[in-house]
Amino acid sequence: MTFLEKHILRQQQTKTQLCVGIDPDITKIPEYYHSLSNPIASFGKDVVEATSHIATSYKLNFAFYEQYGKLGYEALEKTIASIPKDIITIADAKRGDIGNTSKAYAEAVFTQLNFDAITVSPYMGQDSLEPFLAYESKGVFVLALTSNAGSFDFQRKIVDGKKLYETVIERCMEYNQKGTLGFVVGATHPAELAFIRASVPTVPFLIPGIGAQGGDAKETMDANNGGPAFFNVSRAILYPTMAYPSYKDAVRMKAEEYASLLPTI
Amino acid sequence: MTFLEKHILRQQQTKTQLCVGIDPDITKIPEYYHSLSNPIASFGKDVVEATSHIATSYKLNFAFYEQYGKLGYEALEKTIASIPKDIITIADAKRGDIGNTSKAYAEAVFTQLNFDAITVSPYMGQDSLEPFLAYESKGVFVLALTSNAGSFDFQRKIVDGKKLYETVIERCMEYNQKGTLGFVVGATHPAELAFIRASVPTVPFLIPGIGAQGGDAKETMDANNGGPAFFNVSRAILYPTMAYPSYKDAVRMKAEEYASLLPTI
Repeated sequence: MTFLEKHILRQQQTKTQLCVGIDPDITKIPEYYHSLSNPIASFGKDVVEATSHIATSYKLNFAFYEQYGKLGYEALEKTIASIPKDIITIADAKRGDIGNTSKAYAEAVFTQLNFDAITVSPYMGQDSLEPFLAYESKGVFVLALTSNAGSFDFQRKIVDGKKLYETVIERCMEYNQKGTLGFVVGATHPAELAFIRASVPTVPFLIPGIGAQGGDAKETMDANNGGPAFFNVSRAILYPTMAYPSYKDAVRMKAEEYASLLPTI
Repeated sequence: MTFLEKHILRQQQTKTQLCVGIDPDITKIPEYYHSLSNPIASFGKDVVEATSHIATSYKLNFAFYEQYGKLGYEALEKTIASIPKDIITIADAKRGDIGNTSKAYAEAVFTQLNFDAITVSPYMGQDSLEPFLAYESKGVFVLALTSNAGSFDFQRKIVDGKKLYETVIERCMEYNQKGTLGFVVGATHPAELAFIRASVPTVPFLIPGIGAQGGDAKETMDANNGGPAFFNVSRAILYPTMAYPSYKDAVRMKAEEYASLLPTI
């Protein structure tokens, strides 16, 4: 089964397009976790338990695990193991290097950790992406137009009469031999999202930026025009500010709120 | 002390500009290591012991550690701990993400693992680079023109009448508030290396691609024109083909050979 087929089956179960992002931050998780042997692993387990009835996918942000060293790596392994097998897992790792090195990164994420998909950076070109695209059942989201302010610095520069991100998309589509390619397109630029979606109507998009970064769920859904998508919400679900009987309840309520804002078409 | 001051002191000791790259590959290391509890850690320790009299710096390739999961992470920690403190350590990790995520990557590499420098990707722009540049004593090598074939796909595209890598260099120089910025420029393009060096004569370059990738030491040295540089050799030192009394001797001989080809000016 391809990662996209798995995703479609899962969307049919949940009726939503919500991707839950897990960015563990020890300074933001409830005090309760601090006394446990691996706070980040326990936090991740609780987030998965609170949201797995409604999440179509999980995006784990590698930086937030790596910042805790060995404990973080252990938490990453435990969290990925706790996710039910019918839910897509995305390694948000932004990898990319020369061919033989990208091959090792693909091995790390797809084989060692058994993620279904990864985010990669296009700057180093074709041979930096091909080792990821060689896996038939794994998804590869190439950074196109990211959600941050820095997306204005290089991604929109005009190259051959087009924006750099358009050139990236066109070239990467040529590398898409197995139909496993997707793009990262930020929710914070809905007009450009609509423009990009029109150019590649059937390619999966990972769309971060809804919630804490300011992207609006409805506007983003409209801009995406029904294309295959992973609408990611991280901080707005992980770190709810409302008072509920328990932290897990608060996370569940927030996830359900976003799931209802992101229905399948 | 800045990372560049540390590097200059070290060059004065060794009289070379050799950066030894460590890319552990279990399929290429001698059989002898396979029976040890952590082959990659033992291999790294031996490489450091065989080369630390002559290496001005070490570049550890994160992908080659990450591909071995938890064992690889442990090997990374052990190898970094085995490197004498007067030698610069470079995390070749090609990181870069939105601001709060890059901050976590910087914490992972500079604080958790205590590397002196890192490689980062520019595609996501200023806020993706600033968290790395905030560390006064740490070096940040931004990918400019890489050593691989894929460098032709995007890095040389014409933007505002200049190549994309030139635009990257110009913009990144504006972010260089603490003088800790450097660039990755591949040894496989000596004419362009000379052109880039002329534009930023005093900025440190990490120059991979000598040896297995085809870059020539003398030609690369000439192109660099005496600018501050880390000339990296990985596979040609790690996996020598000659027969010597021991593997460590073979690695030592290869490192000494490259060190003599890369003298300080």
